[in-house]
Amino acid sequence: MRTELICVGTELLSGKLNTNVGYIGEKLNSLGILLDCTTTVPDETGTMEQVFREVFSRSDITIITGGLGPTFDDLTRDIAAKALDKKLILDREILQNIAQHFVKRGVEMPKENEKQAYIIEGAKAIPNALGTAPGQIIELKDNNKISAIFLLPGPPKEMIPMLDKAVIPYLKGKFEHVIMRSKVLHIYGLSESKADELIQPVLETERMMEKGRISFTILAHRQIIDIKTTVSGFNEIIVDEALNTIRREFYQILGDHIYGEDNQTLESVLSELLAKKRKTLAVAESCTGGLLSNRITNISGVSIYFKMGVVVYSNDSKINLLKVSADTIREYGAVSKETAMEMARGIKKVSGSDYGLSITGIAGPGGGTAEKPVGLVYFGLASDKGEFTEEKKFNGTRAEIKEFSANYALHLLYKTINRENQTAKQEQQDKKQLKMKF
Amino acid sequence: MRTELICVGTELLSGKLNTNVGYIGEKLNSLGILLDCTTTVPDETGTMEQVFREVFSRSDITIITGGLGPTFDDLTRDIAAKALDKKLILDREILQNIAQHFVKRGVEMPKENEKQAYIIEGAKAIPNALGTAPGQIIELKDNNKISAIFLLPGPPKEMIPMLDKAVIPYLKGKFEHVIMRSKVLHIYGLSESKADELIQPVLETERMMEKGRISFTILAHRQIIDIKTTVSGFNEIIVDEALNTIRREFYQILGDHIYGEDNQTLESVLSELLAKKRKTLAVAESCTGGLLSNRITNISGVSIYFKMGVVVYSNDSKINLLKVSADTIREYGAVSKETAMEMARGIKKVSGSDYGLSITGIAGPGGGTAEKPVGLVYFGLASDKGEFTEEKKFNGTRAEIKEFSANYALHLLYKTINRENQTAKQEQQDKKQLKMKF
Repeated sequence: MRTELICVGTELLSGKLNTNVGYIGEKLNSLGILLDCTTTVPDETGTMEQVFREVFSRSDITIITGGLGPTFDDLTRDIAAKALDKKLILDREILQNIAQHFVKRGVEMPKENEKQAYIIEGAKAIPNALGTAPGQIIELKDNNKISAIFLLPGPPKEMIPMLDKAVIPYLKGKFEHVIMRSKVLHIYGLSESKADELIQPVLETERMMEKGRISFTILAHRQIIDIKTTVSGFNEIIVDEALNTIRREFYQILGDHIYGEDNQTLESVLSELLAKKRKTLAVAESCTGGLLSNRITNISGVSIYFKMGVVVYSNDSKINLLKVSADTIREYGAVSKETAMEMARGIKKVSGSDYGLSITGIAGPGGGTAEKPVGLVYFGLASDKGEFTEEKKFNGTRAEIKEFSANYALHLLYKTINRENQTAKQEQQDKKQLKMKF
Repeated sequence: MRTELICVGTELLSGKLNTNVGYIGEKLNSLGILLDCTTTVPDETGTMEQVFREVFSRSDITIITGGLGPTFDDLTRDIAAKALDKKLILDREILQNIAQHFVKRGVEMPKENEKQAYIIEGAKAIPNALGTAPGQIIELKDNNKISAIFLLPGPPKEMIPMLDKAVIPYLKGKFEHVIMRSKVLHIYGLSESKADELIQPVLETERMMEKGRISFTILAHRQIIDIKTTVSGFNEIIVDEALNTIRREFYQILGDHIYGEDNQTLESVLSELLAKKRKTLAVAESCTGGLLSNRITNISGVSIYFKMGVVVYSNDSKINLLKVSADTIREYGAVSKETAMEMARGIKKVSGSDYGLSITGIAGPGGGTAEKPVGLVYFGLASDKGEFTEEKKFNGTRAEIKEFSANYALHLLYKTINRENQTAKQEQQDKKQLKMKF
């Protein structure tokens, strides 16, 4: 079975980020369906018609996103109809729904939106709760072979619920027999080559998987490495067991370089750990400019343990808000381990939190010197169990140095709390053993 | 002339964001070259070979990104060679460069990296300053027709400098005669349909462009609308004039709904305006959790006018850091116009800045009530020229509500400073006229 995705939009070929491919690919994977190919075409009759015809002729499942809007350059409906040699029909119910969408928002329906009420003959409309363009499911039968074409809007906000609620259930009904499971392990603190070298024994192990398939992908992104294992087969127990075995083998090799799995992020594992230990956190940032706070507060329910964040860009704000000593800044500079330490102590004290975490550095592109180059970043951590600083030198753009620094800080705190727990456990065990001896 | 891009990587079909298409498309556009199609394929011999062969046979320019890494699933070199019926040759100079890359970082070269030193016979290597995989330029001559194939690494950090320094200059040398210029206008505060309706007269105007072409794209993303006009032709003066005329027409219709052009963002235009007026800013955020500070500090050189940011998630921090009255929070709630106002006043005072900007709201998914639902956000702005609050209700996910709120706050301050300037200018003119009368 061949599955293809076509993304329509000139903007996708000239600057705009396309997030739909990844989302749709991942969702299909969960059904055991692999995207064989994705083609992105401009809003242009010629190329669109050629690619639509080619893909329709060779694929069993075709998903098309984009080009369903109300504007002049939205051509998907028309060209899909033409490529399938079918008519477009005005659906009065859809027209009414679109009109109501505007009534709700208290504005008149622009006449441009009327064209969104046309569907390809024989197609089933997919309602769009968040926009005006309905999706369409077109099922084709040719010599006992069934194929399906899905038209979905381009904006992820509208596309995602329609994929989840209409397309995935439709496909599930048809292709339930293949089982595919994936496991992604997230790694921090290793280079891509090093990680690849370490995991070779796992990749090279020959495994018995009757009618099944095991595949690995390794991917480095901004100093984080993801190893994705995908196992497919026809027996759920065997598939799950194979995936678990491989997962265990990776943990044996990579140990605590693995900080999370699947949808977990540095901020989410840190957040879970803080919640579990009932510890609170406050952060003081200079060069990351709010990114660290922003990452932490992307996690819902964070207010329980995240007390506050301060973005102390100026020396004055470091001195006034965090009581960093003016002498320290004068003597060692705002970017120094001494200032990082006082920032961490300061934010811990001001907030009354268990952990005070600080970042101060030079994100660039300006502001670097021979002694303190762009990319030099200091981290400080203060808690009742002790305090310390770390120095790192990152290479990259301003945005990258901000992101590397935020990653490093999140991982630093995560690692520290984990080690404190291990030490505490060890001490308890030692005490127990001591008691037993007496 | 046909230009195609092939992106290689299973991860790009199952979850990973692909930023290369947009970047490469935009760069090609600046040379007057349109991407006719982009195909994304998995790291899989069969599909890769099929697509490589098809695209090579129909395109004049083919760019391939990804699959040049050191790991087991990096297959681009091998399959490109096979599809072209050419050999791979070990290049000792490249091997030495790769080895040096590891020496610099003080680690031993993993043996996996050796395969990156192989290039297709007749190809020219493109040095990679930021990674180990060199790129390759393969020029083919067939019956007087020249075509070119470029192999580039997948990570944008490595791909971008190689595209900019080797591929673009190469293409410039070959296709200099077509001129293409684009202008993107950024709009805030209008719906996509409304913007489309308003600009119809501009789009429908018939224009004389001998051998030229004018195209429009409209694109809505997170409440921001971009209108992109692209003009191509053979005479630079005519192309520029047409683009300028269209730009003026859009400004006449959309007025100050247009906040910026091309690479400008809400934060960059605000930053320029603050710098021009020599005004300073400090922000107090609750529901946006640092996103507003992070957006502002993405602009390099921001430290001159950005005094500080605070992320006051807890009531305590609002009271302690910003001197918001406990009574106000008790009576009206932390999410209220009263609290927003006191936060703005507080951050202005604490920082000693000209503008104090605040956000307090409910980003969700939890924490909403019937009276104060998820998405309700208050904004406060305090300056020496006055103070006010605004209330907005956004729909979306936690991340969207954070982003909508940050956009709204950035635009609110931008609009306010602009209006203050207009008022000041008007007052000066009134005074002049008054003087002239006497």
